[in-house]
Amino acid sequence: MVSSLRLPSLTSLFSSPYLRRPPPLLRRPHHHHHKLSFPPPLTTAFSSQTTSASTTENPKKQTNQDQKVITPRSQDFNAWFLDIIANAELADYGPVRGTMVIRPYGYAIWEAIQDYLNVKFKETGHSNMYFPQFIPFSFIEKEASHVEGFSPELALVTIGGGKELEEKLVVRPTSETIVNHMFTQWIHSYRDLPLMVNQWANVTRWEMRTKPFVRTLEFLWQEGHTAHANPEEAENEALQMIDVYTKFAYEQAAIPVIAGRKSKAETFAGADRTYTIEAMMGDRKALQAGTSHNLGQNFSRAFGTQFMDENGERQHVWQTSWAVSTRFIGGIIMTHGDDSGLMLPPKIAPIQVVIVPIWKKEDEKTGVLNAASSVKKVLQSAGIKVKLDDTDQRTPGWKFNFWEMKGVPLRIEIGPRDVSSASVVISRRDVPGKQGKVFGISMEPSILEAYVKDKLDEIQSSLLGMATSFRDSNIVDVSSYDELKAAITLGKWARGPWSASDADEKRVKEETGATIRCFPFEQPQGTKTCLMTGSPAEEVAIFAKSY
Amino acid sequence: MVSSLRLPSLTSLFSSPYLRRPPPLLRRPHHHHHKLSFPPPLTTAFSSQTTSASTTENPKKQTNQDQKVITPRSQDFNAWFLDIIANAELADYGPVRGTMVIRPYGYAIWEAIQDYLNVKFKETGHSNMYFPQFIPFSFIEKEASHVEGFSPELALVTIGGGKELEEKLVVRPTSETIVNHMFTQWIHSYRDLPLMVNQWANVTRWEMRTKPFVRTLEFLWQEGHTAHANPEEAENEALQMIDVYTKFAYEQAAIPVIAGRKSKAETFAGADRTYTIEAMMGDRKALQAGTSHNLGQNFSRAFGTQFMDENGERQHVWQTSWAVSTRFIGGIIMTHGDDSGLMLPPKIAPIQVVIVPIWKKEDEKTGVLNAASSVKKVLQSAGIKVKLDDTDQRTPGWKFNFWEMKGVPLRIEIGPRDVSSASVVISRRDVPGKQGKVFGISMEPSILEAYVKDKLDEIQSSLLGMATSFRDSNIVDVSSYDELKAAITLGKWARGPWSASDADEKRVKEETGATIRCFPFEQPQGTKTCLMTGSPAEEVAIFAKSY
Repeated sequence: MVSSLRLPSLTSLFSSPYLRRPPPLLRRPHHHHHKLSFPPPLTTAFSSQTTSASTTENPKKQTNQDQKVITPRSQDFNAWFLDIIANAELADYGPVRGTMVIRPYGYAIWEAIQDYLNVKFKETGHSNMYFPQFIPFSFIEKEASHVEGFSPELALVTIGGGKELEEKLVVRPTSETIVNHMFTQWIHSYRDLPLMVNQWANVTRWEMRTKPFVRTLEFLWQEGHTAHANPEEAENEALQMIDVYTKFAYEQAAIPVIAGRKSKAETFAGADRTYTIEAMMGDRKALQAGTSHNLGQNFSRAFGTQFMDENGERQHVWQTSWAVSTRFIGGIIMTHGDDSGLMLPPKIAPIQVVIVPIWKKEDEKTGVLNAASSVKKVLQSAGIKVKLDDTDQRTPGWKFNFWEMKGVPLRIEIGPRDVSSASVVISRRDVPGKQGKVFGISMEPSILEAYVKDKLDEIQSSLLGMATSFRDSNIVDVSSYDELKAAITLGKWARGPWSASDADEKRVKEETGATIRCFPFEQPQGTKTCLMTGSPAEEVAIFAKSY
Repeated sequence: MVSSLRLPSLTSLFSSPYLRRPPPLLRRPHHHHHKLSFPPPLTTAFSSQTTSASTTENPKKQTNQDQKVITPRSQDFNAWFLDIIANAELADYGPVRGTMVIRPYGYAIWEAIQDYLNVKFKETGHSNMYFPQFIPFSFIEKEASHVEGFSPELALVTIGGGKELEEKLVVRPTSETIVNHMFTQWIHSYRDLPLMVNQWANVTRWEMRTKPFVRTLEFLWQEGHTAHANPEEAENEALQMIDVYTKFAYEQAAIPVIAGRKSKAETFAGADRTYTIEAMMGDRKALQAGTSHNLGQNFSRAFGTQFMDENGERQHVWQTSWAVSTRFIGGIIMTHGDDSGLMLPPKIAPIQVVIVPIWKKEDEKTGVLNAASSVKKVLQSAGIKVKLDDTDQRTPGWKFNFWEMKGVPLRIEIGPRDVSSASVVISRRDVPGKQGKVFGISMEPSILEAYVKDKLDEIQSSLLGMATSFRDSNIVDVSSYDELKAAITLGKWARGPWSASDADEKRVKEETGATIRCFPFEQPQGTKTCLMTGSPAEEVAIFAKSY
């Protein structure tokens, strides 16, 4: 009965001729002459807009029929990704090549990431602080492999206050060097250890191939830095923090990352060991979503960071560093999104529930809006992030599509018949069509609240479940190089025993495009034979193409 | 009875010969050859340490007798300020001239500022987002007075990824230009307005004379940016935000700022009107603690930021911007601190209550520590920020001084007799000596919790009260230039009617060192005669020397 009020289905709306597509901002040409290296639009259908859009003269009038559509994911994964970022208003290009403006909806996801991690960092004994972003160039040169790894991507300040500087300043690409410069002044005795800090900051890496959220010239991150009195503590810390990231990925972002150790070739410039969480994106490429480094004494030796131990002997400290960045947002988009747009796990969604009131006649409006408002209040006071979309300027059908595209986990529809029956209709973002739609949920606060919370939990697990199935069906166990190549050619991840040389690892990369993503912590039982050499192997490695 | 357990009074401890002063880190020479322009230490007693300290070799052993002391405020305000920052571990110098490392205790104050303001910004309809920090040099040149105001203090990136850039990039000194570049792309119709955003970010200004927290080459701030469909809305927004800052200053930081409008000469480069909150520091110099600008259409005209109004006509948007920075922490130190160190208002104190357990004999220890732990739990679960200092390595007397120096509002002492009587001793940071100390407060959770909360509230008001009295006793109403000069010579603020020219304002600055801090919103009644010209005046202005 209530369904008679419903608008046309998504499919018919998308194919309707009245849905015109305004040029997504991300497709606009840059208005600045720095070279543009974000991937250009690949879909020919819209490419004419790329060159015709003009910024200062854009007189298009918003009409009720405007609706943004998304390139199908299966058709062009990259175009789909950029469409979502543009249309869901997650980010936009900055005026300088490779830079990104994080818009409020995208930034709210970052705030959800920050809120969770900040609590975990403090629970595990870390304090926030702030190090300056300008680092004397000479610092970068002090740790041999660090300078080798970072010098090609540095941005340098050479002029300050109108004058050429005596020494160039590096805009931090990461802070190990300046952190050690300060640690050296603060650490004297074993009583000053462990020293465990974190900062939320912007960092700059002069990347040549950039992509919003995934690889930008400037990005936001947190970087933890710790110093310890012995190597065991440092190792435990590095492992503890990759575990914090793993839990975050599973429990909040619903991303079934694989945690493990990087190969020597892929280890951070300056670290003894790098731990990583690797996520499988919807195109089955791997995304390194967080790393934790055991730095050993590399930086403490380079910077003379010493302490007096309990026996009165001077020793260099053992250190770690670990980071998660705005890249994680890219991971969330590419893990859960579908052809309708973004799909956000409830625990990190800026809006968990959207309420769309529906009325035809003017005399129905007040009753519907009142009911919608009171439903909003009920959910809000239960701590649920709820948005009531009560604008007159858009049809309910437009709103359905819009909020689906924005990835809101649950939609509540309230029409005149719902008001009469004191009930609502609830639709799940993760279950398309009628299957995801339930009618007649009571508006009674305790019932509604319990139902909504229950559904949000269900969606959270369901997203993790779907991503896990997808991941598992795309990892192939291989026992030879031929099998590895076949798996990579199919776009899958290959997992197989590996004890071959760095040169062999390089050869795999050159011949297949895949790299060792990690030696997973979870290893299969039994004896193993290296897929490349046939020699005994201690571990399996995971190979994949990656972002 | 319980008092027999107490340690020597603060006064006797400070004069005791066993209190040696380790070299404060802030006094250390920079280990980098950029010119150091933070004020050098002024107190001769410690100046030898400035040149002798060595970073990589610092074998001094911490002993139980080490205690940091603070230069008396009355003796040398600047040395006192730097001593507090170093000894309370609020900040340290970065390796690059004029930069500052914000240490965990200082950063926690910044987090308290963020937590409060972030909620208020959201309540007033603003969303957080993030703009890139690199701004094409040409942007800065677009708004005439903006380029004039900011070009002398720019840091420029000229090399990226090993190559000379085609166009120099400005490391943002403020974001109006890049904000307008983006707003121009996002705003089309009146329906897109108001657009109200904020970002928490680092900014860089190549200042020549720097001072930790007050004026540093890089600092942290929030900058709000809004665009509106008419000038009234923009004006209301600018006023609303200076009001948010004013409430924050009074209610959280206990700083009785004077809110008002800047003179034309002191208005932000690019604004039509600048509103400000001006705080009187302990040395009676003024600190501009927050500003809110009505930008009019200056930036929208320079960047072509237009919208179609309801009548289909194109108009330029009206804008505001507003900011509070880590300078506010300097304001808190210099408003409330005393000879014993920092004094923090409870509402922004990272630690509101410190518990110091006291025992002489080993068999007393367990009982005392158990009681201290349970008191900690009681207060913690009541939402109070509490620290139990149970280290063996320091005496209770050392701890008393240390936590007083760190500005913790309340101290709870628990000794064996307190355990027997199930009570504690509570001392207020803001009331020195016996007057601030109360014995026999019951450990019974509800009583203790209520007592502590009550005292914290009392301290919060008391700090505001003290600062207000100090402020009011140091503002002189003047009606002639001679009176103004006399007031300024005495180190006070002068308030008097002003309708004179910009040239006269400049003359006052040159002859007295004082500037117009603001035309306060709160104006005295009655007719006014300009103190300089004798012509009628509409408003009084406040003149003062400032940071």
